[in-house]
Amino acid sequence: MNKSKNNNLLHKLLFAVIIVCSLHSYSQNTFISGMNNMKWEKVMPGVWKASFGTSGLNPLEYSNPPKTASILELGDTPFPFAKASTFYQLTPERAIIRMPLDPLEKIYGLGLEFEGVNRRGGVYTLKVDHYGGVKGYTHAPVPFYVSSKGYGVLINTSKRLKIHVGVGNRKDSKIPDPIDRTTGENWSAQPLSDAIEASIHGDGLEIYVFTGNTSLEVVQRYNLFCGGGTLPPKWGLGFWHRMHTTSTADDVLKEISDFKKYNFPIDVLGLEPGWQSFAYPCSFDWDSTRFPNPEKFVKTLSDDGIKVNLWENPYVAPSSTMFKDIKPYTGSHTVWLGEVPDYTIPEAQKILLNHHQKNHLDIGISGYKFDEVDGYDSWLWPDHATFPSGNDAVEIRQLYGQMIQKIFGDHFKKQNKRTYGLVRASYIGASSSPFVIYSDYYGHKGYVTALVNSSISGLQWTPEIRSAKSAEEWVRRFQTVCFSPMMLLNAWASKTKPWSFPEVTNIVRDNIKLRKDLLPYLYTAFYKYHQKGIPPFRAMVLESGFDAKELIIGGKLDGETNPYEEQKRMEVTDQYMMGSYILVAPVFTGETARKVVLPKGNWYDFYTGAFVGNGKTITIKTKLEQIPLFVKDGGIIPMVSSKKLKNTDKTSLEVRHYGTKENTFELYNDDGKTFNYENGDYSLLELKVSKKNNGKLQGQSKFVNNSKYSYGKVNWRWMSNETQNRQ
Amino acid sequence: MNKSKNNNLLHKLLFAVIIVCSLHSYSQNTFISGMNNMKWEKVMPGVWKASFGTSGLNPLEYSNPPKTASILELGDTPFPFAKASTFYQLTPERAIIRMPLDPLEKIYGLGLEFEGVNRRGGVYTLKVDHYGGVKGYTHAPVPFYVSSKGYGVLINTSKRLKIHVGVGNRKDSKIPDPIDRTTGENWSAQPLSDAIEASIHGDGLEIYVFTGNTSLEVVQRYNLFCGGGTLPPKWGLGFWHRMHTTSTADDVLKEISDFKKYNFPIDVLGLEPGWQSFAYPCSFDWDSTRFPNPEKFVKTLSDDGIKVNLWENPYVAPSSTMFKDIKPYTGSHTVWLGEVPDYTIPEAQKILLNHHQKNHLDIGISGYKFDEVDGYDSWLWPDHATFPSGNDAVEIRQLYGQMIQKIFGDHFKKQNKRTYGLVRASYIGASSSPFVIYSDYYGHKGYVTALVNSSISGLQWTPEIRSAKSAEEWVRRFQTVCFSPMMLLNAWASKTKPWSFPEVTNIVRDNIKLRKDLLPYLYTAFYKYHQKGIPPFRAMVLESGFDAKELIIGGKLDGETNPYEEQKRMEVTDQYMMGSYILVAPVFTGETARKVVLPKGNWYDFYTGAFVGNGKTITIKTKLEQIPLFVKDGGIIPMVSSKKLKNTDKTSLEVRHYGTKENTFELYNDDGKTFNYENGDYSLLELKVSKKNNGKLQGQSKFVNNSKYSYGKVNWRWMSNETQNRQ
Repeated sequence: MNKSKNNNLLHKLLFAVIIVCSLHSYSQNTFISGMNNMKWEKVMPGVWKASFGTSGLNPLEYSNPPKTASILELGDTPFPFAKASTFYQLTPERAIIRMPLDPLEKIYGLGLEFEGVNRRGGVYTLKVDHYGGVKGYTHAPVPFYVSSKGYGVLINTSKRLKIHVGVGNRKDSKIPDPIDRTTGENWSAQPLSDAIEASIHGDGLEIYVFTGNTSLEVVQRYNLFCGGGTLPPKWGLGFWHRMHTTSTADDVLKEISDFKKYNFPIDVLGLEPGWQSFAYPCSFDWDSTRFPNPEKFVKTLSDDGIKVNLWENPYVAPSSTMFKDIKPYTGSHTVWLGEVPDYTIPEAQKILLNHHQKNHLDIGISGYKFDEVDGYDSWLWPDHATFPSGNDAVEIRQLYGQMIQKIFGDHFKKQNKRTYGLVRASYIGASSSPFVIYSDYYGHKGYVTALVNSSISGLQWTPEIRSAKSAEEWVRRFQTVCFSPMMLLNAWASKTKPWSFPEVTNIVRDNIKLRKDLLPYLYTAFYKYHQKGIPPFRAMVLESGFDAKELIIGGKLDGETNPYEEQKRMEVTDQYMMGSYILVAPVFTGETARKVVLPKGNWYDFYTGAFVGNGKTITIKTKLEQIPLFVKDGGIIPMVSSKKLKNTDKTSLEVRHYGTKENTFELYNDDGKTFNYENGDYSLLELKVSKKNNGKLQGQSKFVNNSKYSYGKVNWRWMSNETQNRQ
Repeated sequence: MNKSKNNNLLHKLLFAVIIVCSLHSYSQNTFISGMNNMKWEKVMPGVWKASFGTSGLNPLEYSNPPKTASILELGDTPFPFAKASTFYQLTPERAIIRMPLDPLEKIYGLGLEFEGVNRRGGVYTLKVDHYGGVKGYTHAPVPFYVSSKGYGVLINTSKRLKIHVGVGNRKDSKIPDPIDRTTGENWSAQPLSDAIEASIHGDGLEIYVFTGNTSLEVVQRYNLFCGGGTLPPKWGLGFWHRMHTTSTADDVLKEISDFKKYNFPIDVLGLEPGWQSFAYPCSFDWDSTRFPNPEKFVKTLSDDGIKVNLWENPYVAPSSTMFKDIKPYTGSHTVWLGEVPDYTIPEAQKILLNHHQKNHLDIGISGYKFDEVDGYDSWLWPDHATFPSGNDAVEIRQLYGQMIQKIFGDHFKKQNKRTYGLVRASYIGASSSPFVIYSDYYGHKGYVTALVNSSISGLQWTPEIRSAKSAEEWVRRFQTVCFSPMMLLNAWASKTKPWSFPEVTNIVRDNIKLRKDLLPYLYTAFYKYHQKGIPPFRAMVLESGFDAKELIIGGKLDGETNPYEEQKRMEVTDQYMMGSYILVAPVFTGETARKVVLPKGNWYDFYTGAFVGNGKTITIKTKLEQIPLFVKDGGIIPMVSSKKLKNTDKTSLEVRHYGTKENTFELYNDDGKTFNYENGDYSLLELKVSKKNNGKLQGQSKFVNNSKYSYGKVNWRWMSNETQNRQ
C-alpha cells in the first residue's frame, strides 16, 4: 500500500469519525424560527403532496397522467420521515422549503448531470441551460431527488429552484460545534448539515414525496406518477445517422448506398437544418432546391426501411408559411431574429401541429430533433422577456423542451403512431416522453455519467458520436452509444463515417450488430419501463446489492489550488445496468484496464460466461473490440440470432443463460410501431430455466397470452459451465 | 502574411461590412410595446437620474457623498442620447430597463473582470461571488458601464442585475434581417443588437447617467460622485508581507530579522487567521498562546516602522467576546457554524467597532484584510436566509464587502487616521474606500486584465503573489505587483520568501526598490485620484490617443468545439497606465518578446529614455530584470533618489524628464497618515520644464503653497537625448 493510499484511507477514516461523532446531535428539528410545518396529503399509495401559496405553470401538466394501476401494484409504504420536520416559509422575495436529512444519507438525482452521482454537499441552481458554469445549469435540471434511505422528493415548480443539498446550517437547528481552523485537524469547509433547503423567486410551491422499499422503487413510483416510461418504436432502437446540413435528396441516396456498400445499417436518417428553406430561425418548410419532392424522397427511404427525422429549432423565420399565423402568439424578443411562439397558448400549439402535420407527418416523417430549446442566455430570450399568455419568461424557458415533447408526443399518439426523437431540453415528468436528450458538451466520461444520472430523474440520454481523434476513441465512443437509449451517429459536421477509421471498421460494425441482436432483451426492458417505471438503463445506486462506496480524498491546504482544504468525493460513475441482468462498464480511450464494482451475487462475463466475482471490485484487462459486459447469476438474455444487421421479427431467437440459478424471463413483443399494445395487442413469451433432476439446467418457452408476435424458434445457450469457480 | 492572418483579416472585414451595412437601420427606437419612457432629472452637471418603483438597500449609502466641487470643475456636457430611447417596465416578476446602443459603440466596466475589456456581446449576471462560472460572478460586479461614446450608466441596485450588453433583439425594435444559416455566409450567433437591457427580481430601479468629454472624464465623474478616489497612507504604498496562520509573535520577529538579513523591506505585516483565539468562524480576540502581549508586539513592530494588518472574516464564533452582544443581530443561517451579523443595523456596527477599537485599534493595528465577504454559495448564507433587519439576504450579500469597508473607512476617518487594507468583495462607489480587492483566482494574465478593468469601475485590485513554479514566474509576478495599487506578498501558505529563488533575489529586490523610488510620482497619482477621480492605474481605453483595435477571429463550424461558429474578440488587456505618464506592459512567464500598443504621441523607454514609437504597435524584446515601462513625451517623473529601500521624506528627489516637450508637474506631499490634507495641510511642488532660448530644456521647481512637506533637493535628469530619432 503506497503512501497516497494511506492518506486516502486516513481521510476516509477521519471523515467517518466526524460523521459518527456528530450523529447524536442529529435528531430532526421540529421547530424552526419563521418557518411553518408542511401539511401532507396522501395522493395515492406511497405518494404524498404538500403545497403552500400559489405557483405558476404546473410542470406536471406537461407530463402524462399517472399509471395508477401500476402504482397500486407497488403497494404502500409509510411516510419516510417526521412530518413535523418539514417546513416552508413565504418571504416577500421567495418561497422556501426545508426537508430533513440524516447524517449518512446520500442524495441522487436533480436531472441530467455530467459529474458525480451523490449530490449531497452541492448547491444547485436548477436552470434549463447548456451544461457548464454554475452547478445545476443543464439541459434537464429536474427538481426531483432520491435518497439512499428510500424516498424521493419532487419540487413541482417551473421556476428556477436553488437547492442546498445538505449545505448550510441554521443557527436554530442542532448544528455541530465549530472547529478552530488554525489548530483543529477536522475543520471542514462544509460542516455536516441536517437539511435540504431550497427556494424560488415566487409565491408558493408544490412538493411531492415518493416512497419505496428500495431507491429503485422510488424512481419507479415517480416515473409511473408521470405516466410510466416510454416504449419506443422498434426502429427507434436501431441505428441513427444524421446528414450534413447542406445535403440534398441525392446526397442522402448516395449516403445510403455508401452505408450499404460498407455493410452498415441505417434505421433512422436525420436531416439537419438545411432541409428547410430557411434555418436559424426556421421556416419549417422544405427547401425546394435541395428537396424538390419531399413526399417521394420520404417514400423512397421508407421503402428501404429507413425512417426520416427532421431537425428543428422553435424560432420562426419571417419567411415561414406559418409565420403569419403564429405571429400573434409570440414573445417580445426574438432568437436569431426569429419569433418565439408561446406554446402555453393552445391556439399556438394548433398552428404548429397543423403546419407540421400537413408538411411533414402526412408524407411519413417519423419524428423530430428539437434543438436549442435550452440555452444559452447569449441567444435565447432574456428572463425579462414578456409573452402574450402573461406567463413568466423564465417558466416558459424552463418548460419549453418539455412542452414541445408533450405537444408532439400527444399528437403522434392521437394518430396511433409511435415516434422517437431527440430534444435538447427536458424537465419534470419526462419518462413517458418519446424523446432522448443530447447536448453539445462532448466529454466521453461525462457522457457515461450523464447516462447514469438520467435514469434517476426519468430522463433518457444519448452519448451520441460526433467525431474522434483516433481509431481507438472512435471504437470506445461507438461502444458506449451502442449501449444507450439511442444508437446515434451525429457526425455530420466532422463528416466522419462509421468506416472512416478503416482499421476498426469491423469492430465498429460488430458492436452495432451486438446492440441490434440484443433488441428482444432491450425491447422488453423498455416495456418494463413503460409498465413498471424501471429505467432500461440504470444507475448502479438503483441496483440492489450494490455498495455505493465513496472515497473521500484531498483536504490539503494549497493557496492556489485548494485554499479551503476541500475534500473530493470519488464515486463509481462509469458503469450502469442495461435491462434486468446486464452490467455495462464502458472503456475510455487510453485505458487498458478498468475497475468494475460488482453488486452482491455471482456475476459472469457476457462474452464467455465465465464467473468474474461476487460483491467486490475487480480489475479487468480491456480489449479494443469489446465493451465489458457482465451478467447477473440466472440472467436470461434473449437475442436475435442472425448474421445480418437488419432487425427482422421472424428470425430465430438465441436465449442465453448465465450462471447457475433457475429463473424466468417474460419476453415482450408487439407490432413495434402503434399503441395497440395498450389494448392488449402484444405477446409475452415465458422463457423458463429450471434444474432437471440431475441438477442440469433446462430451458422451456411458452407464450403466456398469444403467439401473435414471435421472434421465431428459441435456441437455448448455456453460457456458464457449471464446473466454473464461484463463491 | 500567413494564411491564418489572412483569414483573420477577412473575418474582420466581413464583420465591419455587416456592421456598416446595418448602420442605416439603427436609428433609435422611441416606442417599445409594454415599456415606458424613463424620466430623467439632472442631479448635477453631467449627472442625471431616473427611477421607477421602489428599490431595496441603496448601495450609494455605503459610499461617500459626492465631491461636488470637483464635479463642477469638470464642467457640463449634454445628455448623451435621446431620452425617448430609454425605457423601463415593471412586471409581476421584474424591474426592467432598456438603454440604446449604437452599432459601433463599445461598452466597458461592470466591475472586476478577468477576461476582455469590451463587454459588448455578453450577458452578465452581476453577483458578488468568487470569479468563475457564470459571466458576472465576481468579487466586485459593479453595475456601472462606460461607453466608448463618452457616457456611463450606473444601475444603483443591491439586487443581482442581469444585463444583456448588446445581446438580444426585440421583435418591435428595428432589427437586422435574419440570415439563413445553411446558405448565408454572414450568419451570426449574435445578431447586432440596438440596446442594453437589464433586469432584477424586484419592484423598481434607480439609474444614473454620467457624461464626459472623454471616457476618462466619465469615470472621473462617477468616482467623484462616489466621494472621489482614496488617498492611501504612504506606508500603504510600501511593501506588504503576510505571515503563516500559525505564526507566533516570536515567529514574526524572526521573519522580520530574516527580511533584514536579505535586505528586503516590510512596511506592512499581515497576520493571517491564527492571531485569533478561534478562526473560521472568528473570535476577533487575540490568541494568548501565540500572541501573549499584543500591545507590546504591535509597539515593537511600530518602533521598527512596520504596520500590522489583521485578517478576519465576518462570521462570529460562539467563543468570541463579542458573540453575546452581536447575537441578537445575526441572520438565520451560519457560515462555518459562525453567526452572520446584519450590518445594515447600526447597533450591530457599533458592537463590531467597539470590540475592534478596544482590542485592535487602541493598540495600534493599522487596518484589516476582510476575507470571505463574497462567496461561495457552498458556504455562505443561502439566498433564502432571513436577517433581523428584514433586508433581503441577496442584497445583504451583494453589499456585505462594501458595507464593511464603509464601516471601517468612516471609523478610521473619525480618528483622523488613514488606513489601507484588503477586502475580497466590493461594489458600487468603492473609489473612496481605502481597501484593495484580491481573490483566490491565480491566473497571472487574468490578474493584469483585472487591474485594467478595475479602473473602469472605481475599484482597486492587487495581483498579489502566492507562489511560483519557477524563478522566472517569481520575477514576473513580482514585477506586476510592484506596479499595482498594493505591493503584496501573500505567500504564507506556500512559505515562499522573496529570496526563495536565489538566482533572482537581486532582481526581485531591484523591482521592489523601483516601485518604492517611484513613491513621489505614485502618491501624486493617488492625490489626483482623490481630487479629480483619475484612477492611478488605468485601462488603456481611458487614455486619449489609444486606438482600442479589436481583432475578430473564428467563426468556423466545429461540432465539438464551436457548434455556433462563434467569433472571438482579441483585445489589448495586458498593458495599462500608471499615473499621468507611465505605460506599464507586464511580461508573462515564457515570453521573450511582447507587443505594446502605443497611443498617439511620442513614447520613450523608461529605463533608457530612448524613443520607441508613436501611435503604433511595437514588438519589444523582454529582459528578465525589467518590467517594460514607457513614458509619454514630456513626462515628468519625480522619484526618491536613494540607495536604500526605506521611504524617507527628507531625502533628495530625482526628477526625470522624457522626450522633448515642455511640461509642468505638480508634486503632491503631505504627512502621509492623517486627513489633515483635507484642511489644506499639504504641499504642492511645481516641477516645470521649459525650453531655453537655445532650445535646450531646463527644469525649475518651486512650492506653490508652502514647503512644509518636501522630498528634499531636486535633481533633474534629462532622459531623452534630443538628437534621438523620433517621428
